[in-house]
Amino acid sequence: MNQPAAATSVTSDLLSRLQAMLGERVSAGHSLREQHGRGESWHAPQLPDLVCFPHSSDEVAAVVRVCAETGTAVIPFGSGTSLEAQVQALRGGVCIDLSQMNEVIEVNAEDMDCRVQAGVTRRQLNQYLRDTGLFFPIDPGADASLGGMTATRASGTNAVRYGTMRENVLGLTVVTASGDIIRTGTRARKSAAGYDLTRLFVGSEGTLGVITEVHLRLYGLTEAISAAIVNFPDIRSAAEATIQTIQMAIPVARIELLDSTYMRAINAYSKTDYPERDTLFLEFHGTQAGVAEQVAMFAEIARDFGGGDFQWADQESERQQLWRARHDAYYAGLAVKPGSRGYVTDVCVPISRLADCIAETQQDIAESNLFAPIVGHVGDGNFHSTVFVDPDDDDMMARVLEYDRRLVRRALDMGGTCTGEHGIGMGKLKHMRAEHGDGAVAVMQGIKQALDPQDIMNPGKVVDC
Amino acid sequence: MNQPAAATSVTSDLLSRLQAMLGERVSAGHSLREQHGRGESWHAPQLPDLVCFPHSSDEVAAVVRVCAETGTAVIPFGSGTSLEAQVQALRGGVCIDLSQMNEVIEVNAEDMDCRVQAGVTRRQLNQYLRDTGLFFPIDPGADASLGGMTATRASGTNAVRYGTMRENVLGLTVVTASGDIIRTGTRARKSAAGYDLTRLFVGSEGTLGVITEVHLRLYGLTEAISAAIVNFPDIRSAAEATIQTIQMAIPVARIELLDSTYMRAINAYSKTDYPERDTLFLEFHGTQAGVAEQVAMFAEIARDFGGGDFQWADQESERQQLWRARHDAYYAGLAVKPGSRGYVTDVCVPISRLADCIAETQQDIAESNLFAPIVGHVGDGNFHSTVFVDPDDDDMMARVLEYDRRLVRRALDMGGTCTGEHGIGMGKLKHMRAEHGDGAVAVMQGIKQALDPQDIMNPGKVVDC
Repeated sequence: MNQPAAATSVTSDLLSRLQAMLGERVSAGHSLREQHGRGESWHAPQLPDLVCFPHSSDEVAAVVRVCAETGTAVIPFGSGTSLEAQVQALRGGVCIDLSQMNEVIEVNAEDMDCRVQAGVTRRQLNQYLRDTGLFFPIDPGADASLGGMTATRASGTNAVRYGTMRENVLGLTVVTASGDIIRTGTRARKSAAGYDLTRLFVGSEGTLGVITEVHLRLYGLTEAISAAIVNFPDIRSAAEATIQTIQMAIPVARIELLDSTYMRAINAYSKTDYPERDTLFLEFHGTQAGVAEQVAMFAEIARDFGGGDFQWADQESERQQLWRARHDAYYAGLAVKPGSRGYVTDVCVPISRLADCIAETQQDIAESNLFAPIVGHVGDGNFHSTVFVDPDDDDMMARVLEYDRRLVRRALDMGGTCTGEHGIGMGKLKHMRAEHGDGAVAVMQGIKQALDPQDIMNPGKVVDC
Repeated sequence: MNQPAAATSVTSDLLSRLQAMLGERVSAGHSLREQHGRGESWHAPQLPDLVCFPHSSDEVAAVVRVCAETGTAVIPFGSGTSLEAQVQALRGGVCIDLSQMNEVIEVNAEDMDCRVQAGVTRRQLNQYLRDTGLFFPIDPGADASLGGMTATRASGTNAVRYGTMRENVLGLTVVTASGDIIRTGTRARKSAAGYDLTRLFVGSEGTLGVITEVHLRLYGLTEAISAAIVNFPDIRSAAEATIQTIQMAIPVARIELLDSTYMRAINAYSKTDYPERDTLFLEFHGTQAGVAEQVAMFAEIARDFGGGDFQWADQESERQQLWRARHDAYYAGLAVKPGSRGYVTDVCVPISRLADCIAETQQDIAESNLFAPIVGHVGDGNFHSTVFVDPDDDDMMARVLEYDRRLVRRALDMGGTCTGEHGIGMGKLKHMRAEHGDGAVAVMQGIKQALDPQDIMNPGKVVDC
């Protein structure tokens, strides 16, 4: 669909109506629209007509009601770190930037839960919690907003132990497509009361409603933490060591794979001198005795697969440096190919198939002549091969798309998914039918049509209507 | 709504059509219909017109297509152990008994998952798994079918450590209201690919489709298991000890409360001689060292709250006896009031409010002059006060309904839910708006109408349409 020009008469009517409610917190300024027309991926930007900054669920509801009346698209925006064109305004419309809804509403320390506005970021929350002995573990790398993380069912490095947003969201406040405010879930640990609306909105990427508040599960800070990196003779050995760790149910908090290409890029970017081999980054949480037990069990597994050269990081500053290096991988890759953009793949397979999937993918990368280093939340069976691309190079993009199609096919054939954590957005729409089948996609379409009959909520994402 | 008479001309047409597909595996016999017209609760039976026994998803789909054509209600039936009138055929129709779909389709030991037909019961599955080193932990007491447990989002005694069906169902095969067969979920540990249909069908109680196959997460048998009972001076102390155990994140596998009334009933029923005081039943899973650590931590907490007289059960036979006593509580209660039926309440509250909720409820029971002993999955904040009633005693039923209304109001005011694990069925429909609000109920109705526009799937349950 074409990008409608901003500041048409329809838009200026809309602008006036929203200004009457929000004053200066709505704008049609070009640079603001540009900032809101893309995430962090290679996808071309698509600008909204207007950007607004509500402060409450009531204000979001008022904005959505105006959009519903006028048939205008609504695109929720958290921190703009999505990777599958989740925030691109395919039909223009109103971008609802939730970053000013950044209040931690309540922390129930004795029940280990909290309620936050959707714009609170995960670092802000953990900063807020620092004197309570509690923390929120989900860490997708970027300092994403908790609303955005909920909307994309994010996970990241700690998910192998603590689960994803699916397991850690207890309830939500959502503004529906008609501008009603609903609450889902309860503060109880479980409930069998009706349809699981919470889990339906988690991962719905703004297509069923705007998430304005999130009720989250928290965890007690662990008594002992130990982190380490260890390298392996080849990527299959690193993956096999991971498989064994999971199969033995060692409760690792993080187990992350970076291939030798990424390790080289990181050394260059971060001025570190890690061995440039296929490497696992690990973290263990527990009591002193528990961590020691986990470490001993893992060390034995690593030895069996030729792992050597453990580098331990027991002090917090050392750990931060280690995980900084891990999180900088993407930027380190970009630095190897200046001016490129990351085409990020995100398959997730049953743990037993992880080594096969990674090894076959590595061979495919070599044969496709792509620069696509591999990084993975391997404890979950999830890995990314980030292809650093020039989106204007048609020949390269054709090879990338073919490579991506084969990678997803490989993962699906192994019982996996096209996306472990980034979501569908616009970028992975093409894989939905292959993964779910026509029948399940039809059910999703039915839900979308029931909850958003005008197709105004982040249109063109997740399901094709 | 009135119960339509069976064997009308419509029914005999339907019978002929289903017989053409299923032969003798469909029947309009009265005793069979009677067996299928009720679960285990006090609710009056409502008989289906026909009962059929399909052997495959294809056969279920064929039956549903005939029902869709003729506007006939479809009621899925597992093992008939539901407690909120989930299987009552409010509009007659066809009961689909899934008990002959009892094949374990695959066990993937290395990924710790399995796929079963919906009629497989949890005991059958664990029996099947006994040589694999794996087990399926969810234990609602009754030997329920895994399809039924999925449909009601069941949990039970092990949920405090292993989660509920929500956390342990990886994917489903479902026959939709139009008779299509869809698959949801993948074998990967996580996915961000579109709407979470798996979690939508888990807990939908047959109102959105018929679950025909379930993909389940399994767990490795634990190295060490230790079980114990310990009694307390009063019910509040037992609840406070539970709260502290959960707040300290001791990973107990089971922590169950039985009040002194139930302990008396159990001694009479099971010929045991447990102290007739408010009692916790516990089980600890882990490594030898891990279990010892958990036991030591819990023992200290119990001491702080006046707990005494630990009785340990380390041998499997002793443990089975102990849990048999726990699971017989309901029947022990019935034996105290011969001829009565159990009106089972099922609130679940945030753990910090558990002691208050139980203590206030106990007082309410006394003031209401009811025989309603308390048993609870207290580690989840979930407890049942089973009111043993004579459904024909209008005065008593009026008092029970008032008591139930106050109990649910109390739980909701504390941030909890009207049902932790039994589901809504017909019995708890009246609490849905109080718990979720009109807006969320409207969203549920929208989903129901989208997925079942004729309202043939277990009509009259979960949502009022």
